[in-house]
Amino acid sequence: MFSSLSSFADTLQDLPPANQSRRADARARQEQLTKPAGSLGRLEDCAVFLAGWGGSPQPRAEIARVIVFAGNHGVTARGVSPFPADVTEQMVANFANGGAAINAIARAGNVALEVVPLALDRPTGDISRQVAMSEAELLEALNAGARAADKGGDLIALGEMGIGNTTIAAALAAAALGGTGADWAGPGTGLSAEGVAHKAAVIDEALALHRGAAGSAADILCRLGGRETAAIAGAILAARHKLIPVVLDGYVVTASLAPLFRDNPAIADHCIAGHLSAEPAHRRLLDRLGLRPLLDLGMRLGEGTGATLAIAILRAAVSAHNGMSTFAEARVANRGGADR
Amino acid sequence: MFSSLSSFADTLQDLPPANQSRRADARARQEQLTKPAGSLGRLEDCAVFLAGWGGSPQPRAEIARVIVFAGNHGVTARGVSPFPADVTEQMVANFANGGAAINAIARAGNVALEVVPLALDRPTGDISRQVAMSEAELLEALNAGARAADKGGDLIALGEMGIGNTTIAAALAAAALGGTGADWAGPGTGLSAEGVAHKAAVIDEALALHRGAAGSAADILCRLGGRETAAIAGAILAARHKLIPVVLDGYVVTASLAPLFRDNPAIADHCIAGHLSAEPAHRRLLDRLGLRPLLDLGMRLGEGTGATLAIAILRAAVSAHNGMSTFAEARVANRGGADR
Repeated sequence: MFSSLSSFADTLQDLPPANQSRRADARARQEQLTKPAGSLGRLEDCAVFLAGWGGSPQPRAEIARVIVFAGNHGVTARGVSPFPADVTEQMVANFANGGAAINAIARAGNVALEVVPLALDRPTGDISRQVAMSEAELLEALNAGARAADKGGDLIALGEMGIGNTTIAAALAAAALGGTGADWAGPGTGLSAEGVAHKAAVIDEALALHRGAAGSAADILCRLGGRETAAIAGAILAARHKLIPVVLDGYVVTASLAPLFRDNPAIADHCIAGHLSAEPAHRRLLDRLGLRPLLDLGMRLGEGTGATLAIAILRAAVSAHNGMSTFAEARVANRGGADR
Repeated sequence: MFSSLSSFADTLQDLPPANQSRRADARARQEQLTKPAGSLGRLEDCAVFLAGWGGSPQPRAEIARVIVFAGNHGVTARGVSPFPADVTEQMVANFANGGAAINAIARAGNVALEVVPLALDRPTGDISRQVAMSEAELLEALNAGARAADKGGDLIALGEMGIGNTTIAAALAAAALGGTGADWAGPGTGLSAEGVAHKAAVIDEALALHRGAAGSAADILCRLGGRETAAIAGAILAARHKLIPVVLDGYVVTASLAPLFRDNPAIADHCIAGHLSAEPAHRRLLDRLGLRPLLDLGMRLGEGTGATLAIAILRAAVSAHNGMSTFAEARVANRGGADR
């Protein structure tokens, strides 16, 4: 929980690092397991990553949650989405009834789902014409995210729902990392090329309006963000201070990290990119944040679906790391024969 | 079960197709589910694929097995692997004790594991100097695969273990699809560049020795294959006749499909490439077979590990397909609003 925006900013500058000794132990163990060195590829890296976070000597991924934050956006008045803004609330009802993609994918993956709707009856301001939120509203959203993350677990996957929020994501990415609307706007839920050009122009208006006033992560989130993107930022930061690794979903979740990264790039260290979204700018965004996605399945749905799928990969990595025998235990000859 | 090699060849020419009507129904359902059209990407394609196979109107992936076939290879006498040939049998013991990567990954993914060792005390002939197997031995191996597949299930993942078998895989790919040892040889469990060059030369010797005598899938498997690669071929063909979709693992499993594909390309239609192996020629091999891998995690272990990981993706696809609400059921507005 953040008592003020300046405490939020201080917390962002004071990040605990991964446990390097546990990482080294995990890497050494990987070399002893009954497989050619390196042959589990990214599963080995994931096990070492998870060993560096969490509270136990061995990596864990069993207790995993996906938290889906939902928000509404005034910028939808500019016609940036092919779906009506009412769909945000309708989809939250669909989550409650178990009928959305994230329900089905979380069920299949044995991942607990938590949905956090954020003042859906009070859309944020239209970022092309005013600030998105007051500082008090931003703090409230950051804390909603922190509260959700503070409940703990081995691993937290983050997702979102909010008609219009790929426009918000593009604005956050541009404000945090540079570039124009055209660099960061994409079709989202299914805009035509003409629709994407209009969306980019709306983002450029927003960037021009707030230029010079977006000097910190909090400023950027306040002026150009949404409640769900702020909650995601709050959750990422709170999880870091609990040493809980975070699995990012697609474009919107990753863009919510960008303002934090601008102020302290070390914030990305406990984050895994669950998947590469089909939203075109996601690849560039991940590259800029130094993240490499685990999955690439052409998905562009949000809701935490890609992050939740990635949990299966992480659990397999942990199972192999903790459950495999070493060459010595299994009496299997390592390469080069008996002398190894 | 195949009564003779000519019955095997006949069976390969008489492949049942996917159920096109179920595929069309599944595609239509995907368009009605509460998500932007196409936004689940390859998960949608996987659901449609699975709907076209199997015995039920809805796609299924719950009852999934991974079958790991193990064999030994005379060509190891040529120094084509950094690991001693004894490791095949030692790893089969490791599988039985639950200590190998596939044990851990199958446990994490709730996939049943079956290991089928094939006459490990009788390595096949060194393909660079003689035929690998007699016709009777080939038939026996094909039937071992068919028997394992005939046990049924919603889905079968195929894996292998056999020191030296990336050399065998490269020879099968070259004989079935053309090219030289250098086109298809790679580091396998960890050869140096010099080792890879030697391996390619051994493969070229084998190709030269058997050139002109490899006129059919059975000929190729008999002269250049191994017992586990033949069993995989038998399992793929038997699964097809039971309409059971098959998840291929990495380079060796995919190469076992290549001779069948040479004689009838439709054999690939019920196969999914579970992952892209780090073995360099795997990408070219998949391209030639018209298959696109689901995962790309830098893995190169075999044992069915990549295929087993992919089952989690397939189950999520099925869960979303069968479990999600439609726009009408959930009263969610589709794009364009109430008129849709």
